[in-house]
Amino acid sequence: MSDSVAAHRLFPADPATRALAGELFAPVEHAPIISPHGHVDPLTLAEDRPFDDPATLLISKDHYVTRLLHASGVDLADLGVGGAPADPRSAWRLLAEHWHRFAGTASGYWIAEELRTLFGLTEPLAPASADRIYDAMSARLADPAFRPRALFEAFRIEVLATTDDPLDGLQTHRRLQQEGLRVLPTFRPDAYLDADSAQFDQRVHRLLDQTGHSADFAGYLRALQDRRGHFVDSGAVSADIGVLEPTTVDLDGAEAEALFARILAGRSTATERRQFRAHMLWQMARMSVDDGLVMTLHPGILRNHSTETLRRHGPDTGHDIPVTTSFAAGLRPLLERFGLVPGFHLIVFTVDETTYSREIAPLAGFYPSVFIGAPWWFLDAPDAIGRFRAAVTETAGFYRGSGFIDDTRAFLSIPVRHDTARRADAAFLARLVIEGRVRRAEAERIMTDLVDAIPRQAFKL
Amino acid sequence: MSDSVAAHRLFPADPATRALAGELFAPVEHAPIISPHGHVDPLTLAEDRPFDDPATLLISKDHYVTRLLHASGVDLADLGVGGAPADPRSAWRLLAEHWHRFAGTASGYWIAEELRTLFGLTEPLAPASADRIYDAMSARLADPAFRPRALFEAFRIEVLATTDDPLDGLQTHRRLQQEGLRVLPTFRPDAYLDADSAQFDQRVHRLLDQTGHSADFAGYLRALQDRRGHFVDSGAVSADIGVLEPTTVDLDGAEAEALFARILAGRSTATERRQFRAHMLWQMARMSVDDGLVMTLHPGILRNHSTETLRRHGPDTGHDIPVTTSFAAGLRPLLERFGLVPGFHLIVFTVDETTYSREIAPLAGFYPSVFIGAPWWFLDAPDAIGRFRAAVTETAGFYRGSGFIDDTRAFLSIPVRHDTARRADAAFLARLVIEGRVRRAEAERIMTDLVDAIPRQAFKL
Amino acid sequence: MSDSVAAHRLFPADPATRALAGELFAPVEHAPIISPHGHVDPLTLAEDRPFDDPATLLISKDHYVTRLLHASGVDLADLGVGGAPADPRSAWRLLAEHWHRFAGTASGYWIAEELRTLFGLTEPLAPASADRIYDAMSARLADPAFRPRALFEAFRIEVLATTDDPLDGLQTHRRLQQEGLRVLPTFRPDAYLDADSAQFDQRVHRLLDQTGHSADFAGYLRALQDRRGHFVDSGAVSADIGVLEPTTVDLDGAEAEALFARILAGRSTATERRQFRAHMLWQMARMSVDDGLVMTLHPGILRNHSTETLRRHGPDTGHDIPVTTSFAAGLRPLLERFGLVPGFHLIVFTVDETTYSREIAPLAGFYPSVFIGAPWWFLDAPDAIGRFRAAVTETAGFYRGSGFIDDTRAFLSIPVRHDTARRADAAFLARLVIEGRVRRAEAERIMTDLVDAIPRQAFKL
Repeated sequence: MSDSVAAHRLFPADPATRALAGELFAPVEHAPIISPHGHVDPLTLAEDRPFDDPATLLISKDHYVTRLLHASGVDLADLGVGGAPADPRSAWRLLAEHWHRFAGTASGYWIAEELRTLFGLTEPLAPASADRIYDAMSARLADPAFRPRALFEAFRIEVLATTDDPLDGLQTHRRLQQEGLRVLPTFRPDAYLDADSAQFDQRVHRLLDQTGHSADFAGYLRALQDRRGHFVDSGAVSADIGVLEPTTVDLDGAEAEALFARILAGRSTATERRQFRAHMLWQMARMSVDDGLVMTLHPGILRNHSTETLRRHGPDTGHDIPVTTSFAAGLRPLLERFGLVPGFHLIVFTVDETTYSREIAPLAGFYPSVFIGAPWWFLDAPDAIGRFRAAVTETAGFYRGSGFIDDTRAFLSIPVRHDTARRADAAFLARLVIEGRVRRAEAERIMTDLVDAIPRQAFKL
Repeated sequence: MSDSVAAHRLFPADPATRALAGELFAPVEHAPIISPHGHVDPLTLAEDRPFDDPATLLISKDHYVTRLLHASGVDLADLGVGGAPADPRSAWRLLAEHWHRFAGTASGYWIAEELRTLFGLTEPLAPASADRIYDAMSARLADPAFRPRALFEAFRIEVLATTDDPLDGLQTHRRLQQEGLRVLPTFRPDAYLDADSAQFDQRVHRLLDQTGHSADFAGYLRALQDRRGHFVDSGAVSADIGVLEPTTVDLDGAEAEALFARILAGRSTATERRQFRAHMLWQMARMSVDDGLVMTLHPGILRNHSTETLRRHGPDTGHDIPVTTSFAAGLRPLLERFGLVPGFHLIVFTVDETTYSREIAPLAGFYPSVFIGAPWWFLDAPDAIGRFRAAVTETAGFYRGSGFIDDTRAFLSIPVRHDTARRADAAFLARLVIEGRVRRAEAERIMTDLVDAIPRQAFKL
Repeated sequence: MSDSVAAHRLFPADPATRALAGELFAPVEHAPIISPHGHVDPLTLAEDRPFDDPATLLISKDHYVTRLLHASGVDLADLGVGGAPADPRSAWRLLAEHWHRFAGTASGYWIAEELRTLFGLTEPLAPASADRIYDAMSARLADPAFRPRALFEAFRIEVLATTDDPLDGLQTHRRLQQEGLRVLPTFRPDAYLDADSAQFDQRVHRLLDQTGHSADFAGYLRALQDRRGHFVDSGAVSADIGVLEPTTVDLDGAEAEALFARILAGRSTATERRQFRAHMLWQMARMSVDDGLVMTLHPGILRNHSTETLRRHGPDTGHDIPVTTSFAAGLRPLLERFGLVPGFHLIVFTVDETTYSREIAPLAGFYPSVFIGAPWWFLDAPDAIGRFRAAVTETAGFYRGSGFIDDTRAFLSIPVRHDTARRADAAFLARLVIEGRVRRAEAERIMTDLVDAIPRQAFKL
């Protein structure tokens, strides 16, 4: 893509709207990045080693990319999924060979933009150009200016949140903070809350051992609270929960205690474990009310759809599939108890677009505690962002949202993802102005708030 | 917004499409308003008193407005929810303070248009302008030309339907009709059909007492029929039913009788009460076949989501939340029996957009009795109207719809809501003409039919 | 519609995008038609008789048309539904009288385009023009150049698949193939797999008799395999399954055998019959792995919604209604077993648009066996096609789809349906190019692949 095309990337065709979108976008194009939810490994920044080869960097660790190559018939093993590729150049050639299959995809947009903006490469990826591009990237990767910390600066990242195990000591985060990088941990307790997850018992016992609490429900809750406290002390602003269903239930103490005991004794039914999950979701809200951590909720994903792929390549390898989700009834017990409590923040994400206008915007348009999570995962792409804005704004406006969340493991893709979101929002706002719905001055304020005031407020930054 | 911008409000950016939308819109811009479903209090017109202060008028009684202020942290009590605000000017200042939060929302559009078209105020609402705008509005409200009846004329309202309790005597409606205003009652029996609604028993006994029928199911049905008859005699054209689920069931007489007896005896289960609701929905269709009242169905809302808010501020205070809805299986028993009966009209509304293309358009594209209800509640906004048209038209065309329904308690907002719908429809039709799908002459006919022939036919006006 | 308007039919208003859409469309405008799934009767081509009158041709056999006329109050009997119309000219006049109701519908677009492109008629259909148009069409129908085979040539149909009963001898297909027409049968076993379908027992016994297998589950499976083999030998490339729910289950042999025996003995429950259906869906996948037939899945339709209409006019008369569908959990047993098997192709169609971005694109974006079926039935229209592309492309790109499927009984409509899909795709691609997402050269390649390489690969042609 030429630079002249790149300048209006993602802006609508109509000349007046396009020009206005560009004018709305200009003041935020280089605004600092606030990234309050994502999956970058903090060691990347702490160790500040040069990045690996191009394939490890852009393919192996990005399940958006490996999944579509897999769908095209490529073996995940040849891409280095679950580790570095045995032969990075071959993996890169596989991407080049199948590159036409990424046309129109979010991954395709990100990679093309990374090549253009970070590596200065605008030649189309293709079998004939694969090696040339690979070599040019390799050379650039050796440049000290391309080390993680240098890029952190160059990317203007102001806040970067990671996602961490409750038992993580968080020393890396503390050290980075001491060195002036605002890298914040996020409490991610799923594996300790879901009795159906692998090694649940061992995890719980490790949690209890490490915190020194008794092996009963009260001790378990105190242990979780302690670890949340450690996260708060280490700069965390949020706790993130991933569940299949956003169902919540308030149990009385004795009931919860008995349930917990049956589960640890290995005598629970599937229904009981489901109820336990629903109660622990409720407990996470209770703890957020106490310790102030923003609660983010990522429901509606059926994880590890292909057992054979899980066995061969591990989790997070591209076969997590969204399912039908609904929030209104499931979240009600939680919101009945905590929805009106001042200071409680619950940010709701979805991979089921039907919930935007039907449930999420109506909930966030009433409860001061509920915030609309930015488009997530499969929906983190230009058209999907446009559908999101159109679906939620007429009910809830722009100020009940979370601001953009990149949710990425791919450190290099952070700027292009935020750039995409900012452009999509500028395009949306430009249309509203051109159609006489929003005044230009309002749109200008909203545009800057979307990248700064809004995520700061939602995430208590 | 300047008048030049206002002229093309909601029309698309493309110059040719915008020009054509304007041309299609012009003949209906000032066409009379047919409002066959809404919630205006008929006493407003009968008493014809000056409107209250600006805050009571535009904030306190509009749960679209109060809900978003509440989500922004404002206490509903400070807005006068459930009554007039203690201090209207303070309530107005709260709106001004949070006005940027309404950018892009349906409520924001309506209020801005009301200020511009009814009060001649185009200065943006903001803390600095709040008092000035409040004072200008107050002055205008004192003008006799701003009394409800004068506005009824000025708005060119040809028919206005209200929503009324089955035991309402309807004298107000009769008096207004005698005075030449076509203000029609609508039979709204929910509280008498749903055994889970508050004070169901007392209501049923009051119904039986007032009509003099026996306290059994046959008497109950006759009592409902009697009251429907009174509505028909008082000019009603429709009966409106709100339910959580659009489920119907045909029970035989003995079964229904036994169910009714168990319910009144307080010995029913939740499942039985659900079955009773489903049967009464079926009975409402049966009665519509008999007495000719159009049946309108508004399902899929989980009412009073926040019990604390219900307790403090009452119902209809902004926390009714849509849920997943489906029609194909649930309505089948009703349609198997009455769907092909000539003269039966069932208008189906939804707050779950997924049902437009999946179920509602296919049903209305086959059954002569089924009409597609206009976008409702959270979906009564420009982009949502556009999605609605795009979702239903390719299957069912323009002539299987109900015409626009404003569904509002806010009398002042009636013209701007109809204006919004007409503009959105003109924009949609203009696109079809420009894309070579519909001839211009067809579009012109459709445009006028949408505001006249189509609602008249659907609502038997 | 004038020819100058027709040239940019369905292209967006923006001049630059429209021009580019036209340039992308030009190379495929007259490209051969690959029609790998539809319902044309092969006898039409084998007998090559002149078509009947205009009404029988464009109305009686097209349930898209008769359903909307029925919704408008026309009796299906007057349209010749279930046979030829008693008075074709009267049926045609009924269409003319109600023609304004088809504005904006897929059927309206198809008919107008057929009149223009096949009959050279651009005068709008209306009561005044009905007879004139009818007579002009009748004259054209008598032209030998308007016989089915001549049109097959003129339409440039390269492959045409029909849908056939498993016991069909397929002599007609073989004869047509010998004569050089690539008309392929499709194995459609629904009535032999669903124990709730009419005359299931008789069908199964006929199947067993004809193939000479024993009346147990093993014999039943072998009988199905034999018939599939006959289809393969007769040129079939796919087996098509229609179900209410896309639920699958893997049963062990003894369990399946016992289930089958209870069903044939008339002692099965509804739950057991549902389980049997789910297992047979799984078995169809197993057989596809063995014999290579592409498996196409058309779920989510509640057939024959109006029992009275079914009784009076038969099935496929316009009252099949879509229902909520989900794939992720239901297809999992099938995909766990066969999803990664090389060569297995499962093409998933839907009439529930919510599944596009939520489930189908994510599944097809991982499993090499899963292909995204083209917009189907109620969704086979320009705006719906645009929504489809926008919903699936950002996750799965263009190369995980099936290519366009006309799915039609209406032979005459094949070219205009493919023309519509090609134009809609050109419009979509033009936008991506104009917005700087896809390079023009990429778009050109995708455009040609969509009408050739992509359906060939998905359907193994």
